[in-house]
Amino acid sequence: MQAIITPLPDFPLVRRGDDIAALILERLEATGIRLQDDDILVIAHKIISKAEGRIVDLNTVNPSDEALRLAAVVQKDPRFIELVLQDSVEVLRTRPGLIVTEHRSGWVVANAAIDRSNIRSEAGEERVALLPLDPDRSAAALRARLLEATGMRVAIIINDTHGRPFRVGAVGVAIGVAGLAPVSDLRGQHDLFGYEMQTTEIATADEIASAASILQGQTDQGCPVVHMRGIPFKRDENATARPLVRPKELDMFR
Amino acid sequence: MQAIITPLPDFPLVRRGDDIAALILERLEATGIRLQDDDILVIAHKIISKAEGRIVDLNTVNPSDEALRLAAVVQKDPRFIELVLQDSVEVLRTRPGLIVTEHRSGWVVANAAIDRSNIRSEAGEERVALLPLDPDRSAAALRARLLEATGMRVAIIINDTHGRPFRVGAVGVAIGVAGLAPVSDLRGQHDLFGYEMQTTEIATADEIASAASILQGQTDQGCPVVHMRGIPFKRDENATARPLVRPKELDMFR
Repeated sequence: MQAIITPLPDFPLVRRGDDIAALILERLEATGIRLQDDDILVIAHKIISKAEGRIVDLNTVNPSDEALRLAAVVQKDPRFIELVLQDSVEVLRTRPGLIVTEHRSGWVVANAAIDRSNIRSEAGEERVALLPLDPDRSAAALRARLLEATGMRVAIIINDTHGRPFRVGAVGVAIGVAGLAPVSDLRGQHDLFGYEMQTTEIATADEIASAASILQGQTDQGCPVVHMRGIPFKRDENATARPLVRPKELDMFR
Repeated sequence: MQAIITPLPDFPLVRRGDDIAALILERLEATGIRLQDDDILVIAHKIISKAEGRIVDLNTVNPSDEALRLAAVVQKDPRFIELVLQDSVEVLRTRPGLIVTEHRSGWVVANAAIDRSNIRSEAGEERVALLPLDPDRSAAALRARLLEATGMRVAIIINDTHGRPFRVGAVGVAIGVAGLAPVSDLRGQHDLFGYEMQTTEIATADEIASAASILQGQTDQGCPVVHMRGIPFKRDENATARPLVRPKELDMFR
């Protein structure tokens, strides 16, 4: 058993309305990859955001009083903070340079995962990228398109790069999933010596998102789409990324 | 650019005093892999713990009063809790079924990362595996042995599987590193449109540890050693995993 991870080179810049499925199929063909059942495609969320038009020009944003107050604390643009608040259900921590909230999707993340980088600025606009409205739906739609085009049942993960408590540095995480059980439940399984497994749940989708992140890169050599073959996972036709969200009441660090 | 990840099959059960480097070289040869510069080997920490004799029989442990008190709260074996306390510098959270501490190495982790599974129990002993005493030193020693045997400068990551706040499921993380910069600092780099990168530090070693974890597995099909080729990283002859520890005073969730 061997896993092969291939970033698709020369992915074009994505604009609002672009057909991501068509772009991926074209890039797969150019790279000489013919999709097979149980291949995985990991997609950097930003190209989904761009294609779906989730780009906002800061010049169109009017910050609320709350945004103005928080912006002074975290020392960021009040218009940016306004967008963070609009996409969040709760502010968890603030300090100069950092605001951590619960995004309306449940993710606990800095800046509500709003991204200022890699967004084409036309005519001097100050553009930022919000998360896709529903990454699970985007992933499912992409999976359906690829099934229709190739007859193959692949898994799709839409990933982002998040910081975390306790450890330095951000890592790739899954924010949208299709076709793959995001959490592997080992409860009831036994190890070599008959003990029940101590660590019972593995966040398989996050581990795959991290593996892809290594090869996606962050800068202008970046490859937003990564193809994987040979990664073991459990198929789930109705999968979403929701099982990865830890309910607030079960989180001892909130 | 393509990355290939190969779990080494049929790795033997490891016992105290075993020569991990020799076992890995034997398994690489059997798998037909000839090491090259910049290959990465990811090693499940438990085989290091076993080889280094970091296995404790619970029957030899006398719980302190503090361990007895905490064991009642978390509803675990007081002897197990005693070992957790001995390996920890601070208890952060407790609730029935869970104790999260700061391990003396700086990792914030459940059960001080002490593992009850996959440890051979001879004559009915109740054995648990503590973390290796100094995983960075173990990684460096292994790297030096492989350099001596093959002439190749590989990177070594010793990994474990940790839970985390906010998200469900454990993921692979690096607890020992040799030859590879664990954190990639993107500060000052610019993206396609001249913005400075928003996410400036990526925990490359943790992403690699997660990628390996997918293929190591947790149960009796597990492969404790995973070989990787084609993963981009920055060489660092003096690397350790320490840069991955977020200082307590910089952590807003402690």
